[in-house]
Amino acid sequence: MKIAIDTMGGDFAPDEIIKGAIQSANEYTQTGFILVGQEGKIKEVISNYPTIPENIIIKHASDIVETHEHPVKALRNKPDSSILRCVDLVKEKEVDCFISAGSTGATVASSILKLGLLEGVKRAGILTLIPTENGFCGLIDAGANIGSKPIHLLQYAIMGSIYMRLVHQGSENRFVGLLNVGKEHIKGTLTIRLAYHLLRRFINNFGGNVEGHEIFSGRYALAVCDGFIGNILLKMGEGLSNFLTKEIQRADKNMGKFLSKFDYSEYGGALLLGVNGIAIICHGRSTAKAIKNAIKIAIDLAEKKINERISEEIKEKIKEE
Amino acid sequence: MKIAIDTMGGDFAPDEIIKGAIQSANEYTQTGFILVGQEGKIKEVISNYPTIPENIIIKHASDIVETHEHPVKALRNKPDSSILRCVDLVKEKEVDCFISAGSTGATVASSILKLGLLEGVKRAGILTLIPTENGFCGLIDAGANIGSKPIHLLQYAIMGSIYMRLVHQGSENRFVGLLNVGKEHIKGTLTIRLAYHLLRRFINNFGGNVEGHEIFSGRYALAVCDGFIGNILLKMGEGLSNFLTKEIQRADKNMGKFLSKFDYSEYGGALLLGVNGIAIICHGRSTAKAIKNAIKIAIDLAEKKINERISEEIKEKIKEE
Repeated sequence: MKIAIDTMGGDFAPDEIIKGAIQSANEYTQTGFILVGQEGKIKEVISNYPTIPENIIIKHASDIVETHEHPVKALRNKPDSSILRCVDLVKEKEVDCFISAGSTGATVASSILKLGLLEGVKRAGILTLIPTENGFCGLIDAGANIGSKPIHLLQYAIMGSIYMRLVHQGSENRFVGLLNVGKEHIKGTLTIRLAYHLLRRFINNFGGNVEGHEIFSGRYALAVCDGFIGNILLKMGEGLSNFLTKEIQRADKNMGKFLSKFDYSEYGGALLLGVNGIAIICHGRSTAKAIKNAIKIAIDLAEKKINERISEEIKEKIKEE
Repeated sequence: MKIAIDTMGGDFAPDEIIKGAIQSANEYTQTGFILVGQEGKIKEVISNYPTIPENIIIKHASDIVETHEHPVKALRNKPDSSILRCVDLVKEKEVDCFISAGSTGATVASSILKLGLLEGVKRAGILTLIPTENGFCGLIDAGANIGSKPIHLLQYAIMGSIYMRLVHQGSENRFVGLLNVGKEHIKGTLTIRLAYHLLRRFINNFGGNVEGHEIFSGRYALAVCDGFIGNILLKMGEGLSNFLTKEIQRADKNMGKFLSKFDYSEYGGALLLGVNGIAIICHGRSTAKAIKNAIKIAIDLAEKKINERISEEIKEKIKEE
């Protein structure tokens, strides 16, 4: 098992990224870690550690994609960026997976363009995790694409269900919901109503429409939606959490610390599902702890061969259709 | 000035609704209050008060629309419902405005069908308030309609701006934003991109696209979106607030109380903008305090003649177009 880590992306790069990678390397001694990025900077950070695990190597990449850059332009202008080099390593099968806390847009675009989609998959989707009263609820698509057709929403449901079952125990006993403005199947746009029928037919534990507030009930393992709404929802949830945390810290510092357990940046990242490789998109504010979580999930997914399972299930259900 | 109050709608009806109405009637002695609903029930609640303000009268309505009922069917099957009677009073100019904490769907449907839209207005929109670091941000449309065209989004922006300027001081110094997945004007669906250009042309303090987390920054007085996303966002925000409050109360009861200031049910309701009348939709969990807030806003909007202002501005901008 090998994993590539983009050490240049994220608000606390490279220090926190490398810290998380070194801690993980000490834990997963059978896994090879490739730190990708500007060699000089990486070596400088590493020199502060008394010992470096033997299962870590450095791969130089001279460019850094900044978060404010236009993803596709940045990829074109910076062919030797750390993100692209990570994707290349996956494409060339030198590693099994990669993680990046850099530009989400660049990670998504480079993964889709270079790795391509899995057989039968029509669109990639970002799956992100939302804390609920009973474990996490996956939200897919959190912004990889906009303007989903019903078949895309069905494929998100299939891919997201597989992910949740593999990584979050008990998900098989909870429901898959279609994000909508009401419970009745006649609610929503035409696309949503058509998707409802597809999901009812092909998703075993389809629980019908899920309304915004029900995401937190713990009844749903997965909420399916178009990337336009998923992106806005995710950012809104994050903004609201941060806002409430700030307000509470103003009143009581200890309570603010308690709320950090709802900090979206700690969950170990979102997964780009549907591409021919394993790509974990970490939060821009990722600390070493978040990076460690992301590495754990990436290795877990690679070991459990998530993409083979997705391909199989998509092919099987398309044949049925 | 006269106001109709649906005493039968909401989780704490009729007690809390009537309590809020009586408190308001004592405060606004020049305003006439019409309590609409089942006369027997209203009289029973009122009998617990030592004195009843003279500016309160009761208007009997035998039916109650339950929240689980299909709005349009309920209106058809229950012609003497408290909601419809309130709308009738507005239509017949017997009152200037009405409030209801009952079925949102029934309130919206009956208002649109019976009152009709203001001249030039193509679609009604629900404006709701979200607390931010610097006052409230209005969100329109929170679910009156789905599938907005660019012109609808422009009209939401015009109507919402007028409301925010009238009711929330300082709104004129903040921005109107178009809810989107990124800041650049090329982001989003075709509808959103076309709306961007319309808003840039016709809205003076248009601040471009607003992303989900930016709603809470306090920079925006208004966020404009389609009712599909607005409804899901609103419910999601409410669900997240409730979830966090519960989690915090588990750890510290006092802190839970502090968070009640972010309780969506306290803000005094949402406004249905664009209809030929003033309709305030209170939260289902409205307490007497929320009802008082809603009454205050309804009277304020009627006095400031919000609908005449909306008609004028819509006509002026359509002419220009």
